[in-house]
Amino acid sequence: MTEITLHSPLDMHIHFRQDDMLKVVAPLSANHFAGGVIMPNLLPPVDNLDRLLWYTEEVRQACQPHAFDPYMTLFFRNYTFAELEAAKPHIIGIKLYPAGATTNSDGGVQEIMAMSAVFEAMQELDIPLLVHGETHGFVMDREAEFCEVYRALATKFPRLRITMEHITTEKAVGLLDEFENLRATVTPHHLILTLDDVAGGLLQPHLFCKPIAKRPEDREALLQAALRAHPKLMMGSDSAPHPRDKKECPGCAAGIFTAPILLPMLAELFERHGALANLQTFVSDTAQRLYRVTPPAKSVTLAKTTMTIPAQYGGVVPMWAGRELAWSVTSVQ
Amino acid sequence: MTEITLHSPLDMHIHFRQDDMLKVVAPLSANHFAGGVIMPNLLPPVDNLDRLLWYTEEVRQACQPHAFDPYMTLFFRNYTFAELEAAKPHIIGIKLYPAGATTNSDGGVQEIMAMSAVFEAMQELDIPLLVHGETHGFVMDREAEFCEVYRALATKFPRLRITMEHITTEKAVGLLDEFENLRATVTPHHLILTLDDVAGGLLQPHLFCKPIAKRPEDREALLQAALRAHPKLMMGSDSAPHPRDKKECPGCAAGIFTAPILLPMLAELFERHGALANLQTFVSDTAQRLYRVTPPAKSVTLAKTTMTIPAQYGGVVPMWAGRELAWSVTSVQ
Repeated sequence: MTEITLHSPLDMHIHFRQDDMLKVVAPLSANHFAGGVIMPNLLPPVDNLDRLLWYTEEVRQACQPHAFDPYMTLFFRNYTFAELEAAKPHIIGIKLYPAGATTNSDGGVQEIMAMSAVFEAMQELDIPLLVHGETHGFVMDREAEFCEVYRALATKFPRLRITMEHITTEKAVGLLDEFENLRATVTPHHLILTLDDVAGGLLQPHLFCKPIAKRPEDREALLQAALRAHPKLMMGSDSAPHPRDKKECPGCAAGIFTAPILLPMLAELFERHGALANLQTFVSDTAQRLYRVTPPAKSVTLAKTTMTIPAQYGGVVPMWAGRELAWSVTSVQ
Repeated sequence: MTEITLHSPLDMHIHFRQDDMLKVVAPLSANHFAGGVIMPNLLPPVDNLDRLLWYTEEVRQACQPHAFDPYMTLFFRNYTFAELEAAKPHIIGIKLYPAGATTNSDGGVQEIMAMSAVFEAMQELDIPLLVHGETHGFVMDREAEFCEVYRALATKFPRLRITMEHITTEKAVGLLDEFENLRATVTPHHLILTLDDVAGGLLQPHLFCKPIAKRPEDREALLQAALRAHPKLMMGSDSAPHPRDKKECPGCAAGIFTAPILLPMLAELFERHGALANLQTFVSDTAQRLYRVTPPAKSVTLAKTTMTIPAQYGGVVPMWAGRELAWSVTSVQ
């Protein structure tokens, strides 16, 4: 196969930021995707209805003129039932960050299981819970340790739909089959990278993200689940733009910018493994089914025609800048 | 105790480089130390007698006017017995790099156990073998995997004195007690850092080195061995200068520059753990005994007086630039 047309691809985990950065990155996602889940970790976070409505409008404007549904999220805090009820029509879910786990998460949750009242209310209102699942333990263990929290949440709130965001471990993949109400996103870069790519040769700040890329056996488990279009695994890029001077410096920010190259990367990867036929399910159908969304119709055709990844997009260096990809987007309709 | 005088401290693993960099960094070691093992991974490597004698003279000149014995090394290759015999009076050992394991090691050894003839000759001539002990496996496993090579070498060449350089794992510490002819150096930074410090928060290129800092239990094993002045464990800093623009960039070079702050760092660390009385053994006596060297007399006094670590030394950013240390060197005699 040397061409594939994807119908309404969705990116179920995107960082659009705000202001100038929003204007740079939002069109790059909105061009290739029909919709996506927009993360709320701004400074200050999107954690009330006014700010949510303001941010939704900012995002919509930045995505013009592309047909793109932004699925908005609130930043988890101790919301009242009334607040949740009022927010529900405007959001796809609420994103929980353990305090300090990643970029702009300092205002996150200190004690997750102390938030039961909020989880109860979300379950009652059928608002999905999206979770950055890392403890504050040793960096290579954080997600595996957090799996106990996923177990506790999934057990205690069996009707709460919980998305394990950007999973990176074999252990998290295993949870998908263990709990009906757990589903997950995975990033294309975690299907490709291990810690060896980040720090095994020279140190690569543009491949540094949270959760950090793990061991070869973890990548293999993620990749196999994605290639066979596991029915509870959705593509969520966690594409996270940082200005170049925040990456190539002491104290490099966590985040890999992939938005404009996601579909070519995935086409190359899935074709190499003979799984191109499953790409539609992985990049759209599963998310539509699990989140019960119907994105705008958009046909994105990719062909096996090389593209060279640009050195930067408005001051943001993408993953694999300067490298060639075997596939590229040839039309969007 | 608020003051300590160290007698002829030795740094048993230093990268002095050459040309301008040599002139910047050599005096910083030669000032605080009475001697040190100088690594041969220049471009091209120091792997013949002519180049060794040239480099020895370069190093000696760069260390002027300090009393400092440079213990020179050759870069391991398939030397003849005659070459080894001719080199012996001029070297303290031969440094083996697996090909591609670290900075300027591309010319290193592909198949270590195929080099038996050289090891036999070194054993016969009583020339120590210094080893960068990493496989080409997953970055967190490389040293642990290499322990099998250490076992094989130590068993097959029982009279060959083998130094496991810059060990980073609990497993390597264990080998010290298992094989009479294995000894090790450990860096101060590996007594302090884990991968969490490098990549657990923001990414820290100035804390990135090979072998990479490992898990908390590894650091603990190294620290305990150093604090009790394990009789086969020597301080070797692996201080490795890279120009700032080779660190704060995509493809950051491996190496932490610690030469000018080593003794204050160690005094602070050993005092905090109530082990200041063992510091002399760790930073000099063990190396003198194991390598049978008698360095020039030099008394280095440190006091519990704070110092602020400079932002850079001639374009090289040291570990913990800008941070305060509780101890500083107050006199060198």
